[in-house]
Amino acid sequence: MSEDGLLRWLRARLDPCLIGDDAAVLPAGGPFAVTVDSQIAGIHFVADLDPALLARRLLAVNLSDLAATGAEPAYAFLALSTQRDFDHRRFFRAFLDACRSFNTLLAGGDLARSPAGTVATLTLIGTRPPDGAFLDRGGARPGHALWLGGTIGESAVGQRWIARGARLLGRRVELPDDRTMSPTVAAVARRAVRRHLCPQPQLVLGQWLGQQPADHRGAAMDVSDGLAIDLRRLCRASGVGAEIREEALPFADRFDEACRELGADPLALALGGGEDYVLLFTLPEGIEPAVSGARKIGRITRSKQLTLRREGVSQPLPALGWDHL
Amino acid sequence: MSEDGLLRWLRARLDPCLIGDDAAVLPAGGPFAVTVDSQIAGIHFVADLDPALLARRLLAVNLSDLAATGAEPAYAFLALSTQRDFDHRRFFRAFLDACRSFNTLLAGGDLARSPAGTVATLTLIGTRPPDGAFLDRGGARPGHALWLGGTIGESAVGQRWIARGARLLGRRVELPDDRTMSPTVAAVARRAVRRHLCPQPQLVLGQWLGQQPADHRGAAMDVSDGLAIDLRRLCRASGVGAEIREEALPFADRFDEACRELGADPLALALGGGEDYVLLFTLPEGIEPAVSGARKIGRITRSKQLTLRREGVSQPLPALGWDHL
Repeated sequence: MSEDGLLRWLRARLDPCLIGDDAAVLPAGGPFAVTVDSQIAGIHFVADLDPALLARRLLAVNLSDLAATGAEPAYAFLALSTQRDFDHRRFFRAFLDACRSFNTLLAGGDLARSPAGTVATLTLIGTRPPDGAFLDRGGARPGHALWLGGTIGESAVGQRWIARGARLLGRRVELPDDRTMSPTVAAVARRAVRRHLCPQPQLVLGQWLGQQPADHRGAAMDVSDGLAIDLRRLCRASGVGAEIREEALPFADRFDEACRELGADPLALALGGGEDYVLLFTLPEGIEPAVSGARKIGRITRSKQLTLRREGVSQPLPALGWDHL
Repeated sequence: MSEDGLLRWLRARLDPCLIGDDAAVLPAGGPFAVTVDSQIAGIHFVADLDPALLARRLLAVNLSDLAATGAEPAYAFLALSTQRDFDHRRFFRAFLDACRSFNTLLAGGDLARSPAGTVATLTLIGTRPPDGAFLDRGGARPGHALWLGGTIGESAVGQRWIARGARLLGRRVELPDDRTMSPTVAAVARRAVRRHLCPQPQLVLGQWLGQQPADHRGAAMDVSDGLAIDLRRLCRASGVGAEIREEALPFADRFDEACRELGADPLALALGGGEDYVLLFTLPEGIEPAVSGARKIGRITRSKQLTLRREGVSQPLPALGWDHL
């Protein structure tokens, strides 16, 4: 299919259709929240990943950034560089379906052939919800409680299974050597693969945080590179420190067993595994988020240290996590 | 340098600084024009291109898309995937300098390591100038004159010289075998290499077009994939055809000699070479753009044919040009 042919195919599926010009003109007024994120074959996903899964994951990962600002998604701009045999229609069918379910309009982009593997870069533009404020990483105050929007570490378990050959085919996860595993461990591994491939952006939580009264609002970001490195970024932006209670960290059911099967340290995956795509946020003590699954994991401190408290003993938070360079 | 280290280095060079959060919040109101474009090593530029040249060219190519809408550039979002030895500081110094000279603020982005070559994707957001309107490809009307904002084909000549080994080193273009060339032809080749590597986005022309009274306004786009394919897109979007006069096509000085040296057909490079980054636009007959270098090349017709008129004889416009897939 030629580029113009693909664009005609796409335009027939977009209503309203803003694509096809050199630049898209956005009818909505500002202010806007804008985020950009790339997914690269061999770095962020295995080269043989189903284009439909890639499409949904690309959108979800970027929506997680918008969630962290409390924005409502509005427009998407996609730059997609692929090798010759890439199934564009399969990718775009899944992408447009996913966009629709998040009220997001594909409004432009760029298509190119790439000599190496696929690189997909998505720009998302979000609007401020009624009665909402945009959140950032700089709002954490000493005495705030520190929260996670969901469990951590499980995505890293899934990624390790995928590196060993696990694949999501349709609705079923196939594991490479499940005959040697107990059914329970296999079920946990399959759930982790799904968690890694199909992250759920916490848009509702982000918008709830942005709609709190100003004196209840804290900092927010999404955990993409690992709790330890991302908490460090939040604390640096806010000029504060934090103390995490290890026993409060939220883990998926049977997370320890899943790590044991992989020979991995649960705490290392939880703090440094990354790609959890849950929100990390602060709230004044006594305020509880109105979503299920969120967990208070510690508190913000005036001292700029980051500490991990385990069985009553504090130690510096290990510097684990993903550096992109 | 770590990602966080590079971001700190960048933040110190941005004022105001909008980067560092999951999404940037744009303070200005809408409407906005948004464009996205990728530059990929091995496809859009040679792998050993100086990162400073890549940075300036990436911005210029994207600004050309904004120019086609009549927008004023405002914000840039950069997704940059590079191999391990990439000189980020050299890239960003040149990028930030270029942004400043176009009143554009780097407001966010994403950095990643890429296993293959460099992929740089830039999202630009532009605002509507006072008393201006946004332009698109759909405004061409039968009877409109068809214009080009500058010469075509020269960038393709430069690209061929670069493929043969020509390089821009500092301010000097080095040619691979200039001892066998006449000084005149060498000078023309050097100019073409500069034209290819350092395109000049026609923002002033685009804004002038957008500021015309509504009944003087026509269609506009930038010529990036070649005049023939891009004119076809403009005519399809407007539901019209066009007739080009071959003798009216604007060429750089000694363009014929430059093509002869390469064994290339001047008309084929002019119609299908691409990467000219000049505006293609329409205006009612009798209206002349207030910029130097623009040239009337033909007219818009009610018949949807695209024709090329040469010495009084019309023929179908050849289907030349760059398809990205």
